[in-house]
Amino acid sequence: MKLGVCYYPEHWPQDQWAQDALDMVDIGISKVRIAEFAWSRIEPRSGEFDWAWLDKAVETLANAGLEITMCTPTATPPKWLIDQYPDIRAWDESGHPRTFGSRRHYCFSSKTYRKESQRISQAIVERYSANPAVTSWQTDNEYGCHNTVRSYSPNARQAFRIWLAHKYKTTDALNTAWGTVFWSQEYTEFDQVDLPNLTVTEPNPAHVLDFYRFSSDQVIAFNREQVDIIRNYSKADITHNVMGHFTRFNHYDLGKDIDITTWDSYPLGFLDQGWWTEAQKQRWMRAGHPDFAAFHHALYRACSGGPRKGRWGVMEQQPGPVNWAPNNPVPRDGMVALWTLEACAMGAEYVSYFRWRQAPFAQEQNHAGLRDHRNITARAEIEAKGLGNFLGALGKQDAAYNKIALIFDYETAWMFNIQPQSAHWNYEALCFDFYTALRRMGLGVDIISPQHDLTGYTVVIIPSLPIIPNDLLERAKAANAHIMFGPRSGSKTSDYHVPQTDPIPGINIIRSESVRASHVFDIEMDEQYYRGHIWRDYIQTDLTDADLTVANLKVEAECDDGTPAFVTSKDYSYLAVVPDMKFLRAVLSYVLDTHDIETTWLAKDVRVERTQTHGFAFNYGSKPVTLRNNFATGKFIQGRRTLPPAGVCVWEL
Amino acid sequence: MKLGVCYYPEHWPQDQWAQDALDMVDIGISKVRIAEFAWSRIEPRSGEFDWAWLDKAVETLANAGLEITMCTPTATPPKWLIDQYPDIRAWDESGHPRTFGSRRHYCFSSKTYRKESQRISQAIVERYSANPAVTSWQTDNEYGCHNTVRSYSPNARQAFRIWLAHKYKTTDALNTAWGTVFWSQEYTEFDQVDLPNLTVTEPNPAHVLDFYRFSSDQVIAFNREQVDIIRNYSKADITHNVMGHFTRFNHYDLGKDIDITTWDSYPLGFLDQGWWTEAQKQRWMRAGHPDFAAFHHALYRACSGGPRKGRWGVMEQQPGPVNWAPNNPVPRDGMVALWTLEACAMGAEYVSYFRWRQAPFAQEQNHAGLRDHRNITARAEIEAKGLGNFLGALGKQDAAYNKIALIFDYETAWMFNIQPQSAHWNYEALCFDFYTALRRMGLGVDIISPQHDLTGYTVVIIPSLPIIPNDLLERAKAANAHIMFGPRSGSKTSDYHVPQTDPIPGINIIRSESVRASHVFDIEMDEQYYRGHIWRDYIQTDLTDADLTVANLKVEAECDDGTPAFVTSKDYSYLAVVPDMKFLRAVLSYVLDTHDIETTWLAKDVRVERTQTHGFAFNYGSKPVTLRNNFATGKFIQGRRTLPPAGVCVWEL
Amino acid sequence: MKLGVCYYPEHWPQDQWAQDALDMVDIGISKVRIAEFAWSRIEPRSGEFDWAWLDKAVETLANAGLEITMCTPTATPPKWLIDQYPDIRAWDESGHPRTFGSRRHYCFSSKTYRKESQRISQAIVERYSANPAVTSWQTDNEYGCHNTVRSYSPNARQAFRIWLAHKYKTTDALNTAWGTVFWSQEYTEFDQVDLPNLTVTEPNPAHVLDFYRFSSDQVIAFNREQVDIIRNYSKADITHNVMGHFTRFNHYDLGKDIDITTWDSYPLGFLDQGWWTEAQKQRWMRAGHPDFAAFHHALYRACSGGPRKGRWGVMEQQPGPVNWAPNNPVPRDGMVALWTLEACAMGAEYVSYFRWRQAPFAQEQNHAGLRDHRNITARAEIEAKGLGNFLGALGKQDAAYNKIALIFDYETAWMFNIQPQSAHWNYEALCFDFYTALRRMGLGVDIISPQHDLTGYTVVIIPSLPIIPNDLLERAKAANAHIMFGPRSGSKTSDYHVPQTDPIPGINIIRSESVRASHVFDIEMDEQYYRGHIWRDYIQTDLTDADLTVANLKVEAECDDGTPAFVTSKDYSYLAVVPDMKFLRAVLSYVLDTHDIETTWLAKDVRVERTQTHGFAFNYGSKPVTLRNNFATGKFIQGRRTLPPAGVCVWEL
Repeated sequence: MKLGVCYYPEHWPQDQWAQDALDMVDIGISKVRIAEFAWSRIEPRSGEFDWAWLDKAVETLANAGLEITMCTPTATPPKWLIDQYPDIRAWDESGHPRTFGSRRHYCFSSKTYRKESQRISQAIVERYSANPAVTSWQTDNEYGCHNTVRSYSPNARQAFRIWLAHKYKTTDALNTAWGTVFWSQEYTEFDQVDLPNLTVTEPNPAHVLDFYRFSSDQVIAFNREQVDIIRNYSKADITHNVMGHFTRFNHYDLGKDIDITTWDSYPLGFLDQGWWTEAQKQRWMRAGHPDFAAFHHALYRACSGGPRKGRWGVMEQQPGPVNWAPNNPVPRDGMVALWTLEACAMGAEYVSYFRWRQAPFAQEQNHAGLRDHRNITARAEIEAKGLGNFLGALGKQDAAYNKIALIFDYETAWMFNIQPQSAHWNYEALCFDFYTALRRMGLGVDIISPQHDLTGYTVVIIPSLPIIPNDLLERAKAANAHIMFGPRSGSKTSDYHVPQTDPIPGINIIRSESVRASHVFDIEMDEQYYRGHIWRDYIQTDLTDADLTVANLKVEAECDDGTPAFVTSKDYSYLAVVPDMKFLRAVLSYVLDTHDIETTWLAKDVRVERTQTHGFAFNYGSKPVTLRNNFATGKFIQGRRTLPPAGVCVWEL
Repeated sequence: MKLGVCYYPEHWPQDQWAQDALDMVDIGISKVRIAEFAWSRIEPRSGEFDWAWLDKAVETLANAGLEITMCTPTATPPKWLIDQYPDIRAWDESGHPRTFGSRRHYCFSSKTYRKESQRISQAIVERYSANPAVTSWQTDNEYGCHNTVRSYSPNARQAFRIWLAHKYKTTDALNTAWGTVFWSQEYTEFDQVDLPNLTVTEPNPAHVLDFYRFSSDQVIAFNREQVDIIRNYSKADITHNVMGHFTRFNHYDLGKDIDITTWDSYPLGFLDQGWWTEAQKQRWMRAGHPDFAAFHHALYRACSGGPRKGRWGVMEQQPGPVNWAPNNPVPRDGMVALWTLEACAMGAEYVSYFRWRQAPFAQEQNHAGLRDHRNITARAEIEAKGLGNFLGALGKQDAAYNKIALIFDYETAWMFNIQPQSAHWNYEALCFDFYTALRRMGLGVDIISPQHDLTGYTVVIIPSLPIIPNDLLERAKAANAHIMFGPRSGSKTSDYHVPQTDPIPGINIIRSESVRASHVFDIEMDEQYYRGHIWRDYIQTDLTDADLTVANLKVEAECDDGTPAFVTSKDYSYLAVVPDMKFLRAVLSYVLDTHDIETTWLAKDVRVERTQTHGFAFNYGSKPVTLRNNFATGKFIQGRRTLPPAGVCVWEL
Repeated sequence: MKLGVCYYPEHWPQDQWAQDALDMVDIGISKVRIAEFAWSRIEPRSGEFDWAWLDKAVETLANAGLEITMCTPTATPPKWLIDQYPDIRAWDESGHPRTFGSRRHYCFSSKTYRKESQRISQAIVERYSANPAVTSWQTDNEYGCHNTVRSYSPNARQAFRIWLAHKYKTTDALNTAWGTVFWSQEYTEFDQVDLPNLTVTEPNPAHVLDFYRFSSDQVIAFNREQVDIIRNYSKADITHNVMGHFTRFNHYDLGKDIDITTWDSYPLGFLDQGWWTEAQKQRWMRAGHPDFAAFHHALYRACSGGPRKGRWGVMEQQPGPVNWAPNNPVPRDGMVALWTLEACAMGAEYVSYFRWRQAPFAQEQNHAGLRDHRNITARAEIEAKGLGNFLGALGKQDAAYNKIALIFDYETAWMFNIQPQSAHWNYEALCFDFYTALRRMGLGVDIISPQHDLTGYTVVIIPSLPIIPNDLLERAKAANAHIMFGPRSGSKTSDYHVPQTDPIPGINIIRSESVRASHVFDIEMDEQYYRGHIWRDYIQTDLTDADLTVANLKVEAECDDGTPAFVTSKDYSYLAVVPDMKFLRAVLSYVLDTHDIETTWLAKDVRVERTQTHGFAFNYGSKPVTLRNNFATGKFIQGRRTLPPAGVCVWEL
């Protein structure tokens, strides 16, 4: 695994560049990303290009032996361009244009901006595609950041109408799909359809879902235009740096168009601003949630090439306090190294730190770098430098073949956002809890889309999936994989209807309910007592013989009023409530035991990953932890059985 | 009492209608409401009417013997109409037009929409007024839902100016009434007056109050235009379905123009989103607050004909989980029957369930019906069916003549909304608490307006009434009714001034205060200790002899600093603080005892209602409760003295 | 010290004025402020002036011997003017014009309004400048109230561009200062620069800081235009009434242009809506925070003439419950007198009550006056009247010469608002805590700007100051004053950059962090244990010899991980965390002890102030408190050693 860094030569005097490059190489960095926000320096005025500085920067970095990731600078169109074509701007949900003055001030549906994006991309690609130091390309930067996937502009409205006409062909088809007969919402022309904002009360959910699909598609199309231009000139890898906890476009779709999916990993900031409890935020204030990075590593590993041969990396790794979370603590000493090694353990091609040197000005001046704004070594540089030799000695690590897959789906996130039907339902948290439970069992878990191949998986975990693909159960059966469904699975059709027949044979949901956060469903399973909350599907228990024959279902856990909480059959099982961690562990154990998958329950702060050749253990806690003797029995090549805070050990398998 | 249902033939295949109608009749339903959202099916394009399907639906339902409530479909103008006349739309308080895409996307002040509303109403009335199956009419649907009473559109501004010119005749009169000399707000032309939104800080309270009055009047006028058209052709009953916990237009005014006031009763949803404590929301999660339905039954009973002969019903009764509250639990088994019988016990003409069959699409797809989306019987259908015979046997129930009236006033709600002067003052909650206390004393209580006749009432409870009508005290005296006033009564004039003389003789409020929620007023009454909170009026105690002669007032309870908390005279009493339930019970007991009204303090979950012939008891709790032996001594014709959860018993008086 | 009152003759019948004036004089009032909201009465229509009523009012008040403070009425331009020139209006941050209907509906950058402000000011000054009863002038009213300093109007944008061009001369200079190379924000024309609102994510902090500076400057310029007109005609004092807890314009700048800075003191309202804990809000519900008034007295004392000879007063003193806080309790009996005497003890020229009589109409009808709306004496009148003789006997009080100064800086408030980097950082609360701690030590404290002369101060307290003036340390050294810096001091340059060299020699901050509110830094100092929270600067401890020589710094307190929490040298000290009150007391004690300043720790509710001749003690609590015997040893001329609730005692020094 290589180390990299994000570098902004345009922020620093030219006479500093050469030394910067030497210093990078000195600490073991081999990759450097540049130019993603440099449009106003490349083209200071319309049509006037200034390549000299960038040529010089490329030359300087190349001379030091660094591989360059060159970016299209489309995340920050310059002021002269916005003034020339104000229709470039996106509009917010309240109907205001979003103005120049920060970044991402463009609408994916602006035809003007599509042309400009292609023009500037073409110019940069023409200039640098032949340069052997430019070994990869990044398109734009963090699509969707600052809520920019969905725009409510006139351009977006026009593009949405075309998208709908293409999808439905006739307004009759659209009317049927959306159920517009409800509340006299019927359309006779596609040009009557507006964007679903500023309505008196909630708009039609199918209308919103299509708008969300359209908005995701616009991101993909925008990106593809840049990818096509790059591929015309270059065989170098193309990537885009996606974000954590971000679901507004379909990352599986994006991943297909690029060679390697990279992401920007900020464990502390996301913990502080996320859904976790105060106790969790306190516990992991200086480490991040132990599953935050791994969840996204697994997810993005699947995007470009599928979970087992997917190419991925970390484009931006947090090196110290950031500037954008509500609270911005210093990471515990050792965490930067731990995060880096955890990416290695999960098969990353590289980890690149953001950024080389802290900027002394503008929006991110409080964001740490490997060096501070005065070029003095910061903690992260020391940790990165310490890793170089070890990573070299470790050699190439191939991700393990995991027996367990967890399905995470973007459309599902959108649908539950549109009609949550519960103040406390949180799809992403539900998936994350499942992932945490499996990982605390010591297991390696792939994260996949509902469309991914299931071959090779023994158990497929579906925390929730309202739209079950027609062929999913068949594919699982063919793969000999047991599917465990969570609540609300199969509850909707792709047109956002309640299905007229049960998508999961035998699982007849006769009604569902959401309850206040303080309400508990008391559950019994195998004479043990557990708790569910938030949501309950009432599974029909007075099944006909035909149903029973089809499904051969058995109630394994039930609520104290006799409602089934967890039912199983050979091919699949169904969890009818949102479980707490204890009940989740119990039902997962049941399923895994049934399929002869061994588990080891890890301490709260410890996580383990295995490549095809090595085992890695990580301590996210503030106290030392010792692994059990019957665990990690191979030779230790880094660390020991007792892990200090932020400690990592590596053993041979 | 009849049972009814809300039905949407346009949502289902025509070949299903006949069976639906037969099934309705089979479970005891005799009334069916249709067409309130069907405009786009009735008139798919401007001027093109399609009556065939509605004729067929009416015929099918009539053939099964069902009585039809036909609606004007004006709550959902179709897209072609909005596109043709964009000025139909209301504007929100931020100055944005509220767009098509859900419902109620119209401004009551749009002259265009007034014409369109009359045109479509006329068309429907002409077509169906002669049909004997159409036994009643409903205008529009839930006026004001989704915050639609008040529009800040140019149309509303123009209409408001005309309304003001009509009310005040001269700007001098307006200037005096509003006190515009304050802050140089004086007007010299009515056309200078804007709507009171987007101001730098709070606008003039009299300006806002007039705008709220105007907005209420616009709803009444809009409705009256439809009523006039219907009456031109038909002698059938006219109703409108109002909502719970909704105060933005004056329902007493609306009730005068229609024959029967109906309302939409959703006990669980309103509990979850209302002001109650977490403990209360937990306790009654599957039942609703025990006084929610009764409060509104009593309130709307007074609207069309006065509290003692008012005609009322429930147009939409919750049948299961709804789709719109933060959390949407399943009602306890039996609750749908209980709610239905409680309406019967309070004199409803009918209870109609919303809706026949759950819609599988669009905004309300998660809202339960008597049947689920696959036409399978849901719990509510079973409970409704079980009631038919009993209701028949019970025969007509006439509402009791109650000795106690509680005054609830819409203008009061508006005024306290405009200048709360306290973060915790909640007028509706205060009225509700008084109602709860009286009902827990086992009493029947009428809810009336300040203008209603007081004849026949022994005690009139006024939780708060800033504007006391000039003749109120005289009317009470003539009726031999004691009035009990709550805090802030008499604190304002109808021009939203502080009155220059005391509206209640002897009750001189020398100052008032609001306090933090955690602050308690410690109160002593008759050597018992109680608590007040939120608000305190300081009643002058150094009264002159003249005052004492006039009022003959006596301090019955005082705060620990000697400030009067509760003072009484023969004709009226005044409570100077917001009481907690214990103090409220004490002062009400004092007043009721003084007037020889017997009370029985009921268990927390139990409520009782009496018609002229029968007593009814209801258990809103999750555990069985047994009525005391000296209570409900008549013959039980339904249930027994011990009420199971959701249980109802009925005895002869 | 004189007493005054705010009076609105235009609100009352003319035949009431003479008696009002006599009654004012009777209770000891000698000053009366009028006309600040009277534009629509002075000029009812464009160009039509009605002076008769105001002439009469002036004559009536003068005849009673009252001194008049005449106001320019520019806080409330009349409707006819707004309709004539709609561009007068300010725009809010969302891009909406802020409409007529309350007050302050103007943009400081409207050239039209600048002209109108001068025109009406000229007219009033011409009329009354020769009148000997008009002994002072007030410009406008409460600049900035209701968030009106910053306007996002086209007028403001144009004026901002001009301001920037004037400041930077070239866009290159602006680009360098703002660091616009970051995110391609570079400008080539000043007319490309927009206001920093409605951006996609946070705008450039230097851009925002300049906009805040510009907005403050616009207030100062607006005011100066009025001042210039008044000075053309009159030698009378000019004042403006500023507000509490308000930082959006630089009050030091304003104070320079006027003769005497007055402010509007509402202790209860500000406590209720401020950042204090629930326990504090409860404790002082009827008194206000014991340091609220004093903090602002000290602050505004420095504005017109510097802390030691600054002229100041209270223009509006809370007399009872107000109308604008979330909760509006009655002050404890005696508090109005206490607040008045505390102003006296700190050297006020006068205290003026708001208002004479409670208005019975419009926005402030629930705001108490010295008399209620029916002209009946309210509690405050009794207390004011009781003070007259004593104040006369006491004679002129000159503010003490304090040895301690606390630096409070407006630009600092803006900068931390722009980039807080912490959800819990509160600059104003930090300053207030320091002030409280010093005052509980029994000390008199001046509040000054970073530019004020430091001569005569032994210790200068700087709770935080990101931009340290170049000459500050030299000035302190010359004055022989020790500076105590709080966290984040020296962290920024005036261009909102991170400085490239340490502004405080030896204090190298190698990184900083913000932590969740629940996180505690455990600190040891002199074998005692303390707590810090919210923020920590990591001070470099591996200092070179050169550093040590320069700074001679010593670590006096450190966090449990060895990080310095408090370091000192002869000339300055640095506190690296936000302290709790106990730690704050400890570090302040350390510094004060070192400089031989004696302190006495006062009870929680007691505060002391000293003039050059007298000592005053105030009891803000609800229980009696007795001062220690070794304290206040001079002759008591008011009260005794034991202070009742709201009690004040005064002794000779």
